[in-house]
Amino acid sequence: MRARVAIIGLGLIGGSLGMAFSNSEQVELIYGFDSDSETVQRALEMEAIHCTGTLEAVVQDADFVFICTPLKSVKGVIPSIAAYLKPGCVVTDVSSTKEQVMRLLSELPVGVHGIGGHPMAGSEKHGIGAADRYLFENAVYVLTPVVGTPLEVLAALSALVEETGARVKVMDAEQHDRVVALISHLPHILAMSLVNLVAQEEDALLLAAGGFRDTTRIASSNPELWEDILFSNREKVSQGLDAIIQELSQLKEELDTLQRKAVRLRLDSARQVRDSIPQRRKGLIPEFQDVITVVPDRPGIIGQLGGWLGSHGINIVDIEILRAREGDGGTIRLGVPTKQEALRAVSILHEQGIKAWMS
Amino acid sequence: MRARVAIIGLGLIGGSLGMAFSNSEQVELIYGFDSDSETVQRALEMEAIHCTGTLEAVVQDADFVFICTPLKSVKGVIPSIAAYLKPGCVVTDVSSTKEQVMRLLSELPVGVHGIGGHPMAGSEKHGIGAADRYLFENAVYVLTPVVGTPLEVLAALSALVEETGARVKVMDAEQHDRVVALISHLPHILAMSLVNLVAQEEDALLLAAGGFRDTTRIASSNPELWEDILFSNREKVSQGLDAIIQELSQLKEELDTLQRKAVRLRLDSARQVRDSIPQRRKGLIPEFQDVITVVPDRPGIIGQLGGWLGSHGINIVDIEILRAREGDGGTIRLGVPTKQEALRAVSILHEQGIKAWMS
Repeated sequence: MRARVAIIGLGLIGGSLGMAFSNSEQVELIYGFDSDSETVQRALEMEAIHCTGTLEAVVQDADFVFICTPLKSVKGVIPSIAAYLKPGCVVTDVSSTKEQVMRLLSELPVGVHGIGGHPMAGSEKHGIGAADRYLFENAVYVLTPVVGTPLEVLAALSALVEETGARVKVMDAEQHDRVVALISHLPHILAMSLVNLVAQEEDALLLAAGGFRDTTRIASSNPELWEDILFSNREKVSQGLDAIIQELSQLKEELDTLQRKAVRLRLDSARQVRDSIPQRRKGLIPEFQDVITVVPDRPGIIGQLGGWLGSHGINIVDIEILRAREGDGGTIRLGVPTKQEALRAVSILHEQGIKAWMS
Repeated sequence: MRARVAIIGLGLIGGSLGMAFSNSEQVELIYGFDSDSETVQRALEMEAIHCTGTLEAVVQDADFVFICTPLKSVKGVIPSIAAYLKPGCVVTDVSSTKEQVMRLLSELPVGVHGIGGHPMAGSEKHGIGAADRYLFENAVYVLTPVVGTPLEVLAALSALVEETGARVKVMDAEQHDRVVALISHLPHILAMSLVNLVAQEEDALLLAAGGFRDTTRIASSNPELWEDILFSNREKVSQGLDAIIQELSQLKEELDTLQRKAVRLRLDSARQVRDSIPQRRKGLIPEFQDVITVVPDRPGIIGQLGGWLGSHGINIVDIEILRAREGDGGTIRLGVPTKQEALRAVSILHEQGIKAWMS
């Protein structure tokens, strides 16, 4: 049986879920609702949803309801839809903290299943315009059921969510919130605090154009949203702050007392741990070989690169402009499937008078 | 008069400087030295240097000597070359902290000019294999002269350094070290401490594949190098740690006592400051318009995209594979020079049956 899905809130996450579902065999029909009519129109055009209506109308026929509004609106949505839900229907959300939402979901009518959800994927951009059917590809998607959730219901939601390309991880809501305090909320706080500290130092921002700007990217996120996130997970964030303050104080002590070995152990351990975190793949194929090439800045050069390699049967599976100077040229990274093809690509480019080497 | 340059240490920075200088009208000849003979061979092949020799031989004819070894080797290099330097020669380095190096440079013979240098550019990769002639394009390159440095000597070194595409910023060594403690060393410490903290929490690393992995990228840097950097700037790093611990403690107090407004002010301020940091450009042209396109995963698709647009006179100036699924397709961002060309690109792609829209 193919499922009918309702999506409430058609921003980056809601829109991307819709685009992924509309390409799924498991999904028959996608209803969508958003308080902004332009957003709804755009979602229809982008085929993220098939039809729309009032909040009540879009949920009444749905097997699965995805609440994709900001966290603070979830509280208002649940009572508005409760009376219109089909028996056996599954209601889930996508917000970044789960304990609060689980309390709200527990107020759903008997026979309706509330399961928390948190797709660990995002983008600097937001809104339906940034929606992408591959947003969740290889991302972790956490589901937080309750004690009474029937296994087959959890399995059905998991199967649907996996249609987006995400990998489902089932967790307890409390454990989820403790983990995201460390891996998401604390990094945000550190970036924010660092930026505010640097702002007090004259000339510092001038030097900050490169690495610092990149490492503090998350400090540019929506403050309203983050106020909500931090306060919805206040206790666990506070515990995380205690822990990081302790780490930093110990390190300061080691620096002040010239304990080089202790500092080195921290650096070694961090590198080892960080290198062990699996990389989320976004290339067309899991493994590929990089070729670096220095090309002149002239119209059509990227098409030409593709053409030269393509005419020899070599497929470019990844491409990145690393650096460039206007009117001069640039350094481009090309990913090709195998080492053998990389070697051939290098010699094909050399024949065209283009500098190239394997990375 | 064209300059003769010697580069000691042919890693990422030394190699990239050589590649940039070898394309400069200002430079006549580049001598290179590295303790690793394979590296020297590779540098010659990549045209990062023109000739090589012993440490003493490569500096004796040079107008400018760039010491590009790790910080802790600078101490050994300076006395080894001192007796062989030409009168009027400029000796500079590229290390990340400057006060220590300035003391070493002050021991150079009379008539030789020591000026500290710090190019604020880098890469995750290191070694001559990662060298790139555009590495410094639009990056800030700090020079730290001394009180006695003649203005024309500083101007000559600045002009040479600007040949790499970098923007020179002259600073006092003490001020430089204070600023980099905040914008470079502290971010490194925070990433390291965060990773070590998360490693203690079960299941946390599993969820860390996405954003957390990206935000802690610098924790994977070379521990040996970073031990040196942190201890060479120990006092200023310690002061920075004091300041950030204070920031975090205040925030924790605000969270614990439900001061939403105070937390919101911090978030607002961080976003405002971070957005004001100028972006370092790396595209072929300063401004361009993005087109987003969803393409099928088939051989040669990137070349085809370039070909379709190229045959209509539209030049792709930036390209990025945003996300993809093997055997299915992917989302690609294309940068084209103007909005008008973006509109035309969208309709050309539509004619080919390819989904596309302006970002």
